[in-house]
Amino acid sequence: MISTPDGAAPRVRRTATRLADGRELFYFDASEPYVSGGATRSMIDSRVPGAAPSSGSMRYDLLTGEWVALAEHRMDRTHLPAPDRCPLCPARLGREPGEVPAEDYEVVVFENRFPSFHGPPDGGPTTIDGEGLWPARSAHGRCEVVCFTSDHDAAFADLDPGQVRTVVEAWADRTAELSALAGVEQVFVFENRGEEIGVTLHHPHGQIYAYPYVTPRTIVLLDQAERYAARTGGHLLTDVLEAERRSGTRIVSSGTHWTAYVPVAARWPIEVHLAPQRDVPDLAALDEAERSELVTVYLDLLRRLDRYQPGVDRLPYIAGWHQAPVHERRELGRLHLQVFSVLRAPGKIKYLAGSESGMGAWVNDTTPERIADRLRAVGP
Amino acid sequence: MISTPDGAAPRVRRTATRLADGRELFYFDASEPYVSGGATRSMIDSRVPGAAPSSGSMRYDLLTGEWVALAEHRMDRTHLPAPDRCPLCPARLGREPGEVPAEDYEVVVFENRFPSFHGPPDGGPTTIDGEGLWPARSAHGRCEVVCFTSDHDAAFADLDPGQVRTVVEAWADRTAELSALAGVEQVFVFENRGEEIGVTLHHPHGQIYAYPYVTPRTIVLLDQAERYAARTGGHLLTDVLEAERRSGTRIVSSGTHWTAYVPVAARWPIEVHLAPQRDVPDLAALDEAERSELVTVYLDLLRRLDRYQPGVDRLPYIAGWHQAPVHERRELGRLHLQVFSVLRAPGKIKYLAGSESGMGAWVNDTTPERIADRLRAVGP
Repeated sequence: MISTPDGAAPRVRRTATRLADGRELFYFDASEPYVSGGATRSMIDSRVPGAAPSSGSMRYDLLTGEWVALAEHRMDRTHLPAPDRCPLCPARLGREPGEVPAEDYEVVVFENRFPSFHGPPDGGPTTIDGEGLWPARSAHGRCEVVCFTSDHDAAFADLDPGQVRTVVEAWADRTAELSALAGVEQVFVFENRGEEIGVTLHHPHGQIYAYPYVTPRTIVLLDQAERYAARTGGHLLTDVLEAERRSGTRIVSSGTHWTAYVPVAARWPIEVHLAPQRDVPDLAALDEAERSELVTVYLDLLRRLDRYQPGVDRLPYIAGWHQAPVHERRELGRLHLQVFSVLRAPGKIKYLAGSESGMGAWVNDTTPERIADRLRAVGP
Repeated sequence: MISTPDGAAPRVRRTATRLADGRELFYFDASEPYVSGGATRSMIDSRVPGAAPSSGSMRYDLLTGEWVALAEHRMDRTHLPAPDRCPLCPARLGREPGEVPAEDYEVVVFENRFPSFHGPPDGGPTTIDGEGLWPARSAHGRCEVVCFTSDHDAAFADLDPGQVRTVVEAWADRTAELSALAGVEQVFVFENRGEEIGVTLHHPHGQIYAYPYVTPRTIVLLDQAERYAARTGGHLLTDVLEAERRSGTRIVSSGTHWTAYVPVAARWPIEVHLAPQRDVPDLAALDEAERSELVTVYLDLLRRLDRYQPGVDRLPYIAGWHQAPVHERRELGRLHLQVFSVLRAPGKIKYLAGSESGMGAWVNDTTPERIADRLRAVGP
């Protein structure tokens, strides 16, 4: 059983096991008969173990001050397999075993077979070519896969609220556990959806990266929040949310605990932020009422997104949870979800070409107000 | 005639004119009979003028400290026209007039009809929704298109050295002129090549953005260079080049004046930097010998890139010239070209999904040394 922050009865039973190559796997089941965690339906991973995941390395880019992970082993990762060979589907007789050794499951999380970050921290930095300019170290940390449902053909937006609630519990559980790992500095829970953004497995799933550093995007945010606090005494993310609520112009939906809005300087053709009303650092810190309402507002948001582009039933999107760093300047972080799409029109993609990819200089072909208008117009 | 920095005879004749809607256009011709600039072959733009380009706006993103341009008018830009309607081809009888009112040309540069940045600086910042948190201003500056050749089916790598030299002269001329415009803080000369990165016109061309701010990527670089100078007394970009030359591991080619190398923390599946031996801020500051050798080393580099992936004749790439900002901390900048590709294998693209797009955390599926080995192996 996993604990809840407010001491309420746990909503979900977690059952831990290991795959043949030693990777950890966790079933999350909402209620009896615990379809996947129960002894009758789950089994031992019968595959001949392949090589256990290995750590790549990472190098410090002195021109940007950022670490870049090198993960050569990922070049061979599974790429758009046929539906009957989906490694995320439950085990079935006569079918090649996949990653999940159970005949059915509700939600399952396991260590990625092709991780960008893996293992405990090593002994510290080395240098490339003996040059002090070029530090390197192991790309430690952990990458996990979250299967949102055993139904290969579903989408997150199709799930029923009870199922989504189980996903939320899994996210919170994994955030707490990964944050406690030695060497982990930030936990990023996200979903890539759609071939347009490079998804290589269609089965509805998300990922979790436990990074060995605070990510570049977050460093920038923390720097901004620190300057803002010094200048105004306020909390940047809290004040931005309050200003959005005051203005109302770009609010997509709001409940008692959550507000969805298009940020005033949206850089993607479609972009929405979803933030809790209360200052919380991460998913693990959400209370019962917040988790419950999150299910509703998130499903509402995803369904609006799927109706955004005429003729596009399933919008490609990236949904990422910005969480406070585990240690560094944690008090300046604040949980918020950023959902965005590269689809600027049906059949037309916003590419990150020279200006964005080369210079980091963004040009959006629409306005935040138009995005919000459309998301309101398509209805819940 | 345009001047050269070392007072040598100009290599190229520049002829200025205006299009029907008022946009400026410049022909660059290397030698008599000046095919495009000559009165006999060029003509007045006979089109009924459409609306002149308009300025968009830009908003300050308080979460990142970056300006985001909003350019709604770009949503309607020309998208993969049929070859006989290419707006960059020379004018031909019986054909709908394009952007270039000349029967032929060598190299031509004109103001983009769908600019992301346009016009002189306005009166200063305003705010969105009356909120002081959210400054906005006009997206002033200038965007130009550079047609590398009148041959619709050519690629940059196909050009003969004389033609490339004319392109270099055009780049240098435009860098100098755009840098002198009021409100321009940085000039970015680049080429997007290939539909894989969103190119909407196949005719070989590049672009120039004259930004109203120092770009985010450059701000980060200048911050790093400033810290490096404070710590070591050295110039970051100079010392990185020297270290790459000392190590030699990732050098692709080098001449008297230029070195091409894969950066030690390359983040793209294919990435090469090309830097001059001498500290120069921008393309306009290159001397005669540097310009001359640039033609050779750049053609060599592009031809290697086109041989990089088996079966891929024309590698999709972005080639961008990082130039020193016009005013702010100009002395910390240093000219270098960054060429990179998203093609991680034939038919497989490196997508910027959750980790890169959401968190700015990069994972490369290969190593810089492998990239350099391959570029050396494919030969010049």
